Amino acid sequence: MLVTTLSEFALIERLRERLVGPPGETWVGDDVAVVPGPRGDMLLAADAVVDGVHVDLTLVGLDDMGWKAMAANVSDIAAVGGRPSYALVTIAGPLGEIDFDLLYDGLTAASEAYGCPIVGGDLTSSPTLVVSVAVVGDSAGPADLPPPVLRSGARAGDVIFVTGPLGSSAAGLRLLQTGRAGDAPDLVLAHRRPRARLEEGLAARRGGASAMIDVSDGLAADLRHIADASGVGVVVDRVPIALGVNRVSDHAEALGLGGGEDYELVFTAPDPERIERTFADAGLGTPLRIGRCTAEAGERRLRDADLPTLGWEHR
Amino acid sequence: MLVTTLSEFALIERLRERLVGPPGETWVGDDVAVVPGPRGDMLLAADAVVDGVHVDLTLVGLDDMGWKAMAANVSDIAAVGGRPSYALVTIAGPLGEIDFDLLYDGLTAASEAYGCPIVGGDLTSSPTLVVSVAVVGDSAGPADLPPPVLRSGARAGDVIFVTGPLGSSAAGLRLLQTGRAGDAPDLVLAHRRPRARLEEGLAARRGGASAMIDVSDGLAADLRHIADASGVGVVVDRVPIALGVNRVSDHAEALGLGGGEDYELVFTAPDPERIERTFADAGLGTPLRIGRCTAEAGERRLRDADLPTLGWEHR
Repeated sequence: MLVTTLSEFALIERLRERLVGPPGETWVGDDVAVVPGPRGDMLLAADAVVDGVHVDLTLVGLDDMGWKAMAANVSDIAAVGGRPSYALVTIAGPLGEIDFDLLYDGLTAASEAYGCPIVGGDLTSSPTLVVSVAVVGDSAGPADLPPPVLRSGARAGDVIFVTGPLGSSAAGLRLLQTGRAGDAPDLVLAHRRPRARLEEGLAARRGGASAMIDVSDGLAADLRHIADASGVGVVVDRVPIALGVNRVSDHAEALGLGGGEDYELVFTAPDPERIERTFADAGLGTPLRIGRCTAEAGERRLRDADLPTLGWEHR
Repeated sequence: MLVTTLSEFALIERLRERLVGPPGETWVGDDVAVVPGPRGDMLLAADAVVDGVHVDLTLVGLDDMGWKAMAANVSDIAAVGGRPSYALVTIAGPLGEIDFDLLYDGLTAASEAYGCPIVGGDLTSSPTLVVSVAVVGDSAGPADLPPPVLRSGARAGDVIFVTGPLGSSAAGLRLLQTGRAGDAPDLVLAHRRPRARLEEGLAARRGGASAMIDVSDGLAADLRHIADASGVGVVVDRVPIALGVNRVSDHAEALGLGGGEDYELVFTAPDPERIERTFADAGLGTPLRIGRCTAEAGERRLRDADLPTLGWEHR
């Protein structure tokens, strides 16, 4: 089997079938495994950031690369409503050319920001810099806390929420690429230092979210993951776009749908008022209602049109 | 800071100092982090295998590379006397050129052999193939089982053991490199499919081992890690060499001392008879006494000479 004949998503699906799973949720992809632990569930996530594939080091710093590698993993944990506990960091790269102090500045900044100490890892020589992070998380909470939120739990009639407006990271990247970083430093920062939505994920879980995912590939692609895994249709009424994105691109909605790497959370919930109350009680901004799930399993709609298939393939 | 001015081991030490640790054992390197878990300690290990650095795919198969990535991590868990629970596998590589079925043949074979299901990971594009594995392990056992064995617990007077003779993997590699694989298929197999010594690690822990490590860099280098971390001297009286290694090389002892990747366990223990009884009770071969720890912290001796500094730098 060679990947040339299969898309990356199809490949992931194929590898998944080969795995002998434990008696829990198993997976391969940028997501979380929820497995039985000694007390409650254990959450496991792994995500790699590759120089030239996920980051352009002529535009952002090694510290940003380190931050991103850590934040992307914490975001995976956030997307099931869990808490990160520990991180392992494996760095493969041209060791003589890497400023490890700078790389670790970003890694440890994110580690501290999210309360996820780096306890180990590996360091090895390789021509291309790859920062692989694995995070172990904890799903425990008060006795009345629902279980971790998987991507497979959406049901027809559920409302679709997103925790914030989209497109910032893609717009920030455009600004960096066109030498206009000074135009909107907040968008550039959203690209360089994406934020994992830990509190929002926990609030969604507490408020009865039925399915959840983080926007890493782009709203359109990630919402498709929920719809596919849950066997529901999805109809998106609106795509909330972050402030200033429309001054960067004439296709702001496309950036919001396909840009990815915003790490906002998209989730579904049967009781939207309960969600909004829970977010308010937690002192968080109101999540945005963007659509609903339908009983027509194949339905993928944006207003009156097909939901586009924008978004990177699995990176 | 650039690595050109520091050895890789020194770099690891420097990165370690930068980490904000949890209230447990923290580390960076090919070893295990022992961290507080919800019940007992949790064991975390991460190790990457890089095409062209750790494996030569013109000599061994992609399945062997997969096996090795998994076995090396399980071996890290074995080296503290723990059990592997779950693995995350991150593959970065030229996706269109990789035979994933073959790679996964090896990964899943090791996963099944060691009872360590692959529950997730990541798949990403990169010019060079890097297989990063992270393993979560469990240190639990009967109430009278001593805690996981760290590399820092050796004391003067302790006997140094190794779980089996050394040099097989290095000899097997030589045979492959010189087109003589048929001469000693068992040595070639030791290189292609190294075995993690889980039962031996558990027996050593149960028998009161004070410090332990797996032979990944080579006996000389790995024993130095124990001596450095424990603040003891070490005197090696003999280097047990695997059968047939002397027919592959005129420097069989050098292969045993510096070859690495045998994944035998080296450990120290204050009560050698208790160790031997425990191994016998577990139905395991008698571990081999190879030397002793001394109170002279800087002593690194092989019989009447200095212990050589053979062994790869950190790979």
